[in-house]
Amino acid sequence: MSGRGPLHLLSAVEAASLVREGAIRAEELVAACLARIRELEPTVQAWAFLDPDHALAQARAADRRRRAGQPLGPLHGVPVGVKDILDTCDMPTENGSPLHAGRRPAADATVVSRLRAAGAVILGKTVTTEFAYYTPGKTRNPRDPERTPGGSSSGSAAAVAAGMVPLALGTQTNGSVIRPAAFCGVVGFKPGHGLIPRHGILPLSRTLDQVGVFARTLEDVALLTEELVAFDERDPDSRPRARIAFREVLAAEPPVPPRLGFVRTPRWDRMAPDAAAAFEALRAALGDRVEEVAPRAELGEAFEWHRVIMEAEMAANLDREWAQGRDRLSPALRGLLERGRALPALEYQRALAGALALGAGFAELFRTRYDALLTPATPGTAPRGLGSTGDPSFCTLWTLCGLPAVTLPLLHGADGLPLGVQLVGAREADAPLLRTARWLAARLGAAG
Amino acid sequence: MSGRGPLHLLSAVEAASLVREGAIRAEELVAACLARIRELEPTVQAWAFLDPDHALAQARAADRRRRAGQPLGPLHGVPVGVKDILDTCDMPTENGSPLHAGRRPAADATVVSRLRAAGAVILGKTVTTEFAYYTPGKTRNPRDPERTPGGSSSGSAAAVAAGMVPLALGTQTNGSVIRPAAFCGVVGFKPGHGLIPRHGILPLSRTLDQVGVFARTLEDVALLTEELVAFDERDPDSRPRARIAFREVLAAEPPVPPRLGFVRTPRWDRMAPDAAAAFEALRAALGDRVEEVAPRAELGEAFEWHRVIMEAEMAANLDREWAQGRDRLSPALRGLLERGRALPALEYQRALAGALALGAGFAELFRTRYDALLTPATPGTAPRGLGSTGDPSFCTLWTLCGLPAVTLPLLHGADGLPLGVQLVGAREADAPLLRTARWLAARLGAAG
Repeated sequence: MSGRGPLHLLSAVEAASLVREGAIRAEELVAACLARIRELEPTVQAWAFLDPDHALAQARAADRRRRAGQPLGPLHGVPVGVKDILDTCDMPTENGSPLHAGRRPAADATVVSRLRAAGAVILGKTVTTEFAYYTPGKTRNPRDPERTPGGSSSGSAAAVAAGMVPLALGTQTNGSVIRPAAFCGVVGFKPGHGLIPRHGILPLSRTLDQVGVFARTLEDVALLTEELVAFDERDPDSRPRARIAFREVLAAEPPVPPRLGFVRTPRWDRMAPDAAAAFEALRAALGDRVEEVAPRAELGEAFEWHRVIMEAEMAANLDREWAQGRDRLSPALRGLLERGRALPALEYQRALAGALALGAGFAELFRTRYDALLTPATPGTAPRGLGSTGDPSFCTLWTLCGLPAVTLPLLHGADGLPLGVQLVGAREADAPLLRTARWLAARLGAAG
Repeated sequence: MSGRGPLHLLSAVEAASLVREGAIRAEELVAACLARIRELEPTVQAWAFLDPDHALAQARAADRRRRAGQPLGPLHGVPVGVKDILDTCDMPTENGSPLHAGRRPAADATVVSRLRAAGAVILGKTVTTEFAYYTPGKTRNPRDPERTPGGSSSGSAAAVAAGMVPLALGTQTNGSVIRPAAFCGVVGFKPGHGLIPRHGILPLSRTLDQVGVFARTLEDVALLTEELVAFDERDPDSRPRARIAFREVLAAEPPVPPRLGFVRTPRWDRMAPDAAAAFEALRAALGDRVEEVAPRAELGEAFEWHRVIMEAEMAANLDREWAQGRDRLSPALRGLLERGRALPALEYQRALAGALALGAGFAELFRTRYDALLTPATPGTAPRGLGSTGDPSFCTLWTLCGLPAVTLPLLHGADGLPLGVQLVGAREADAPLLRTARWLAARLGAAG
C-alpha cells in the first residue's frame, strides 16, 4: 500500500482491495478520477455523458454499504466507463447519433446491471463513433491529441489510457475494442462471441457484435471480465456455462511454455515499415516459441464475408433509423446501409457459411498447434488526424470467427507511440489466452 | 409376456425387454419385421433401401453380443427405420432425388451412430419426398393406399403405421414429422429445435430443420428420443445439456392436472368440417382443463416468415444442386429455389427477427398459462391421391419457433381415418410435454 501513486492511477485490483480494506473511500477514488477528467477532458473528450454528482452519489452509497457491514462485490467502489451504446437506466444512451439524442433507456444493459451488482460505480458514458461504425466522435488520442484514439469504442480506450478511469467497457463488430486499445496503449480484451451477454446494447450484427473491456493491466482485465461473462437468455447467442475463473487462471503458470503462431494476415502489405520491423524483432526475441503461420488463400475471401455479414445485419438492425432519419446519418453509414439493403439473402448466407468453415479451420489450428496466434493489432501506431478511426482489418478475421483476442501495449513505433501486440485464442479458451498474454509480457520483461 | 401379439407388432419397449431377457432373439424380431414388409411393401412402398441380409446380420451380431454377456444398450436388437436424408455408412442415402442416386456417405449421421451405440438394428432407409420438400415419393398411406401418407418423412410414418418397424426417424422443416404421423395414425414427436443433433443429415434450413421420431406408443417415443438427444458440436445449434430423462418424466404423474390452450390457428378456415367437429367434441370433453387462445394478428405474418426463411435457407443449402442439375429437380422445388435465390437479405433477416419475437411471445404464454397448446396436427384426415403430401400449415408456427410438438392418433374423421391431436410445449420442456400427452390420452380413455 505504501508508495502507491495517485489514486486515479490505481489499478482496479488495487483500488478494489483498498476500498474493501477501508484504506481509501470509494468517494475519494471517484473524486480523484473526476479531478483527472476535469484536467484532461478538454483535450481528450472521452465522455459522452458525465454527471460528477451522480458518480459521487454512487460512490458514497458504496461507502455507506461498506460501513454498514453489507456484503461487497469484487468491484466495490471501482469506477467504470461505459461505451454510450450500452443502455443505462440512470444516464442517457445516445449511440453516437443525433437520431438518438436525449434517448433515456428504461433499463440497464445486462452488463451494466452486472457491474452494479459487483459494486462498481458507473462513472459515465464514453464516446462512441456514430452507431459504433466508422464516423468518429469527438475523442482524441491521449498519447497525442492530433491523432485518432481509434474506434468505435474511442472514449473507453482514451479514458483508460488517460488515467480517468481504471476500467471501461466497449464493443467490437470489426476492430472496435482491439484497435482503440492498441492506438491508446492500453490492454484491450474481447472474449469469444457469446461470452458476455449483449442484451441492452445497440444491436448492429448478431453474428459479429462482441463485448470487450479496457484496462491498464491484465489482472484488471481478468477482474472485470470475470464479472461480465454470464448466461443471459435474452442474448440468443449466450450459453449456460460454468463461471470462468479468469483471475485464477491468469495467476497460474502455463503447464508448458506456450507455443505461438505468428500470422502475417493477408493485409500484411498495409503494415507500416516501423511496425513491421518491431514485429520482426518481437518474433526474433521469442525464438522457438513462435512459428510462422502462412495465411491460406481462403483468408482473403474472409474479409469479404465479414463485409457482407456486417452490411446485411446492420441494414436490418438499423432499418428504423434508415426509414425515419437517413438524412441525419453520416454518408459513410448511409452508404453501408444502402449496400446492406441491396444484398441478396444467398450472398449473406454464403458469407455466414464461409465464416463457420473458417472458424472450424482455426479451431483445428488451436487444437493441434498453437496456444495463441500472435499478430499485430493494427498496421501501425495511431494515424494522425481525427477524420478516421484507422484501419480495423487486423482484427477482422478474429471478430468474424468470434475468437477471443487481447492486445497488449508491448511495442512502440518509430514515433514513440504504442503498438498493440494481439494474441488470438481458441473459442472457449478465453482465460488461458489471458494467461498466455501474461507469459508473453513477462517473457519480454514488460509489465503487461 | 404371455398373450403377446405377433412379434412385428411389439412395442419397442416390449421388444427391447424381451431381447434383453433372452425371451426372443433380435434375429426373430427382425425376421418378423422383414416378413411384414414382404407382405405389405408392394402396397405401402415405405422403403427407399432395404437389404434383408444386412438387417439380419446386424440382428445376429446383437444376439451374439448378448450371448457373450456384453453390455446391452436400451435399444438392443430393436429395428429402426431411418429417413433417407440421414446418412448411413453402410447403406445409400439418396435424399429422394435422382441427383443423389447411388450416393454412399462415408459416415453415419450423429443420430444413426447413436442408434447403433444404443444397440438398435438399422433396418433400412425410408422414403422421403424430393430433398424432403413437397414432391412426393412412392409411399402410400397404409390406412388407405389411395391416400397420401403425408410427407416429407413419408416412409417412416407409413412403416411404423404398417407394423413394419416399431420405431423410425424423420425430420421436420415445416410439417414433415407431425403431418405424416397424423395421416398414418401413429405417434409423432418433434423435440425442440437443437435438441437432436443434425450432423450428417441433409441440411435444408438451419433455422427450421428439426429431427423427430415415429412410434406407436408414447413410451416408445420416450425410449427412442432419450437416446437421440445429445450435444454435438458439429451442429451449430446443439447445446451442452444434462441428459433428459424422457422415460422417467413420461412415467410420472403431472404435479397438477395440466392446463391446455386450444389454438385455432389463423388457418382454421382450412379445417374440414368433420375434423372441426371432432376437435370441438374433444374440447368439450376436456371441460375446464382447456381454454381458448385467440390467435393474434401477428400469427398470420408468421406463415410468411416461415416461407421466407425456408426459401432463403434452402436456396443456400441446395446451391450446388441448383448449379449442377436444376433440370433434374421437380418444378415445385425449382420454383422454391428460384424464389429463395431472389430474396433480399433484409427480408430474410426480418423473418428471422419475427420468428424470434414470436417465440418469445409463446414462451410467455407457456410460462404463465398453459402446459401445452392443443391444436389439430392437420386440417383433416389424409387427403385422397398421391400427388401431394397434404397441407403442413398446422405445424408451421411451431416449427418456426422450434417448439416441441407431439401428435397422438386420438380422433377420427368421418371417413374413419385417424386425425392427429397435436400438443405443443415450451422450449426445454420436451419431456413434460410427453407427460402431458400421456395425461391427455388417459383422460380420453385411449391407449395413447
